[in-house]
Amino acid sequence: MKAELIAVGTEILLGDIVNTDAQVISQGLSELGIDVYYQTVVGDNPQRLERVIREAKERADIIITTGGLGPTLDDLTKETLARVFGKKMALDQEALARIHAFFDNIGREMTPNNEKQAWLPEGCVPLQNDWGTAPGCAFEADGTHVIMLPGPPRECEPMFKYRAMPYLYKLAGGCIVSRNVRVFGLGESAMETILHDMMASMKNPTIAPYAKTSECFARVTAKADTPEQAEQMLEPVVEQVVSMLGDSVYGVDVDSLEQVVGDGLRERGMTLAVAESCTGGLLSKRITDLPGASEYYKGGVCSYANEVKVKVLGVSEQTLAEKGAVSPEVAEQMARGVMELMGTDFGVGITGVAGPGGGTEEKPVGLVYISVCFRGVCHTREMRSSLGRDRVRNQAASTALDLVRRLIPEGQCDQKGR
Amino acid sequence: MKAELIAVGTEILLGDIVNTDAQVISQGLSELGIDVYYQTVVGDNPQRLERVIREAKERADIIITTGGLGPTLDDLTKETLARVFGKKMALDQEALARIHAFFDNIGREMTPNNEKQAWLPEGCVPLQNDWGTAPGCAFEADGTHVIMLPGPPRECEPMFKYRAMPYLYKLAGGCIVSRNVRVFGLGESAMETILHDMMASMKNPTIAPYAKTSECFARVTAKADTPEQAEQMLEPVVEQVVSMLGDSVYGVDVDSLEQVVGDGLRERGMTLAVAESCTGGLLSKRITDLPGASEYYKGGVCSYANEVKVKVLGVSEQTLAEKGAVSPEVAEQMARGVMELMGTDFGVGITGVAGPGGGTEEKPVGLVYISVCFRGVCHTREMRSSLGRDRVRNQAASTALDLVRRLIPEGQCDQKGR
Repeated sequence: MKAELIAVGTEILLGDIVNTDAQVISQGLSELGIDVYYQTVVGDNPQRLERVIREAKERADIIITTGGLGPTLDDLTKETLARVFGKKMALDQEALARIHAFFDNIGREMTPNNEKQAWLPEGCVPLQNDWGTAPGCAFEADGTHVIMLPGPPRECEPMFKYRAMPYLYKLAGGCIVSRNVRVFGLGESAMETILHDMMASMKNPTIAPYAKTSECFARVTAKADTPEQAEQMLEPVVEQVVSMLGDSVYGVDVDSLEQVVGDGLRERGMTLAVAESCTGGLLSKRITDLPGASEYYKGGVCSYANEVKVKVLGVSEQTLAEKGAVSPEVAEQMARGVMELMGTDFGVGITGVAGPGGGTEEKPVGLVYISVCFRGVCHTREMRSSLGRDRVRNQAASTALDLVRRLIPEGQCDQKGR
Repeated sequence: MKAELIAVGTEILLGDIVNTDAQVISQGLSELGIDVYYQTVVGDNPQRLERVIREAKERADIIITTGGLGPTLDDLTKETLARVFGKKMALDQEALARIHAFFDNIGREMTPNNEKQAWLPEGCVPLQNDWGTAPGCAFEADGTHVIMLPGPPRECEPMFKYRAMPYLYKLAGGCIVSRNVRVFGLGESAMETILHDMMASMKNPTIAPYAKTSECFARVTAKADTPEQAEQMLEPVVEQVVSMLGDSVYGVDVDSLEQVVGDGLRERGMTLAVAESCTGGLLSKRITDLPGASEYYKGGVCSYANEVKVKVLGVSEQTLAEKGAVSPEVAEQMARGVMELMGTDFGVGITGVAGPGGGTEEKPVGLVYISVCFRGVCHTREMRSSLGRDRVRNQAASTALDLVRRLIPEGQCDQKGR
C-alpha cells in the first residue's frame, strides 16, 4: 500500500508554521507498513489543491489530507476532494449537533459559517472530532482511500491516532504492535551505540531509536497475523532492550516521567511539593498536566524573586549572600522549605540560570542545581546545558522528576510509604 | 516570481525528522516577495525525484532543493537535477580543496566517497559550505533557476541565509510586508464574520484569519515595489481592522499576551504575582517563558491542595466550606492573598475544574473563576470551556493575562505606576 500526504495551508508555505502533522502521520503509517512516497504542501487555493489531488490520485492507494476543514472562506479541502472524486456534499446531522453542543457548552453564539464544517462528501465515514469543531472524514472512490483530518496539531494528532489509525488497520492487513522503552539520562546516540548490533541484526521485531525533548526512547515493533503473536514476539526483545539500557529506563509504554512519578507516589500514598526558580512553574505545570495529580501533589512555590525564597520558603539570607541564589545550598533549602511548608514526603528545589542573560564566568547560562528532599536527606544534582532557555528549563524539570523516581521506595510499604 | 521547494530525504517520509528547512526557506522567500506555491518531500529514489523535479520545472521560476548532496550512494539530488536540465557533472577544485581541508582539520582520513561531494553540474555557481562538507550550487537553465542546499538544518539554515539569499535578492522584484493583528476573546469564525466583507473585497493588501491556541489573529499582507510603499498600503488597512475588532485586539506584531503584559508592567515599574489552582503553574510558566520576567514577576503559588490555599495564601476555611474551592470568592482571596504575600501591584487567582474528572452538575468541567486584584479591587471573571484539560488550562491562563492587560493603566505614571 502506498500513501501520500497533502497538507493544505498557506501558513505553511509562508513559513509561519512547520508541518509537524506530516511527521506524526508518517510515523504511524510506517508502523503499519504503509509506504509514504510523497508529502506535499499546497496553499488554500482550489486550482492548485485540485492539481495536487489529481496527481496523488494517480499514484497513491491512500490520500491523507490535513487542514482546510475549518469554517472560513478559504477552507476548501472537502469541497475540492468531493469534486475530484465526483461526490456531492451532504449535511451530517451528528456533526452539526456536535458543533451546536460545542458552542452551547462555551456559552458562545454559533456564527452561521460554522455550519459549513458539518457538510461532508456524501457516503463518507465521518470522523467525529472530540478535540475541536471540524470533523474529519474518510471515503473510498475509484480504488483510492481518502482520509481528511483537521490541521491544528492538537486536533490532528488525536484524530489520526483515534480515528484514522483504526480505519487504516483494516487496510494494512495483518497487525503491527509497538512497545516504547522510555529512557532519561542517556543521549540518543549513546542509546544507539548500546543497541547498535541488536538493531542491525533484527528484522522482525525491529528496534528504532527516537529523540524527544531532553530524553529519548527505543521503539520495538513486531508484525504478525494476530496481536497475540506480535505480543509473544515482542516480550523477549523488550526485556533484552530494558536490561541493556539499565536504570536509565524509566518505563515501557508509559507517557512520561511525570506519569511514572505520579503512579509511584499514588501507589505508596506519598505526596510531593516543588519550589522553582529558573523553571518558573514549568515543573508544577507538567506534574498537573495529568488528571488526578491532586492525589499526590499538594502544590508548589515559584520563588522567582529572592525575597520570596526567604519569606515563603525560609531560605537563609546569609546563604543567598554567601553562595548566591544559584547554588546547591539554596536548592536544598528550597526543597526542604517547600516540603515543610506543605507537609509532604518529597520536596523539590530548582535554581539556575535559564538564560539567555544572567550568566557569569563562574555561573554560566545553563547551570542548574536540582535538589530532592526525602526522609530528611537532600539529594542534589548539578546540571549543565547549552541548549537554550526552553530546553534548559525542560531538562531541569525532567532531571528533578527522574531524581524523585529513583528515590521512590521499591516494593510494599505502609500508608505513608515508610 | 514563483518558487517551489523540494526536500529530498526518506527520513522525512518515515517521520524520523520534521522538515524544518522548508519553514526557514519559506520565511526568507516570503520576505523577498517570492511566492511559494508548493513544498514537496520525496525519498532518495531517482525516478520519483525526477518526476517531482519535472513537475516543478513546469510550474515554477525557482526550484530550491534541500538534502541529497552527501557522499553516500543514495545522495542523488545533483545528478538527477543535472540530468533533467541536460547538464554534465564537473569536479569543482575549490570544493574538493575545502573537503580535504575539513578532514585535515578534524584529523581524520578522507574516505574516497567524499570526493563525490565536489562534483557539481557544469557551469553552476558553487555555494561553498562553511558549516559542513557538502557544497550547494545554483544554476539557471530553460528559464528556471535551481538552487541546491544541504539537508541538515545546522547547514541548510546558514547556507540559505548567507549563500542562497544574496543570489535570490537579484531575482526578486518587489517585496511583501505583513502585519499580525493579535486578538483574544473572539473566536476565529466570529472574527472572520466581522472582517468577512473586507476580506472578500480586498486583493492587495490581503486579510487572512488564523487560529491559535485559545486565541486568533488576522494577518494583513501587502505587496509593493518597496518596503516603504508596502508600509503605506498597510497602515490604513491595519488601522481599520483594529478598530473593527475593538478592544479584543491586544497588539499588532506582538508575540503573545504574556509579552504585552510584561512590557506594560516593565514600563510602569509594576509587579505581578499569581496564585494558581487548576492551571497548576501553567500561568507562572508562561510568564517566565520570557527572558527578563524577573523585572516585573516576583513569583507564584500553586495551591493545588485546599490546605495550601489556607496556609500559604490565607484563604478562609469558612469560604472554602460555604462556597467551595471553585468559586469567585476563593479566586478573589487567592489573588489578594498572593499579592499581599509577595508585595506586588497585581495579584492573580485562578481556581476551576480542568477535568476530565471532578465535575458536578453545579460546577461542571471547564468552569473556571479568574480574579485579578489591583489597587485594592478584585476583578473576577467566570469562564466556561469544553475543549479538554490542556485547552481549559491555557484559556484560563490567557484570560488572566488579558484581564491584567486591560487593567494596566494607560499613559504616563510614576515609578510605582500610580
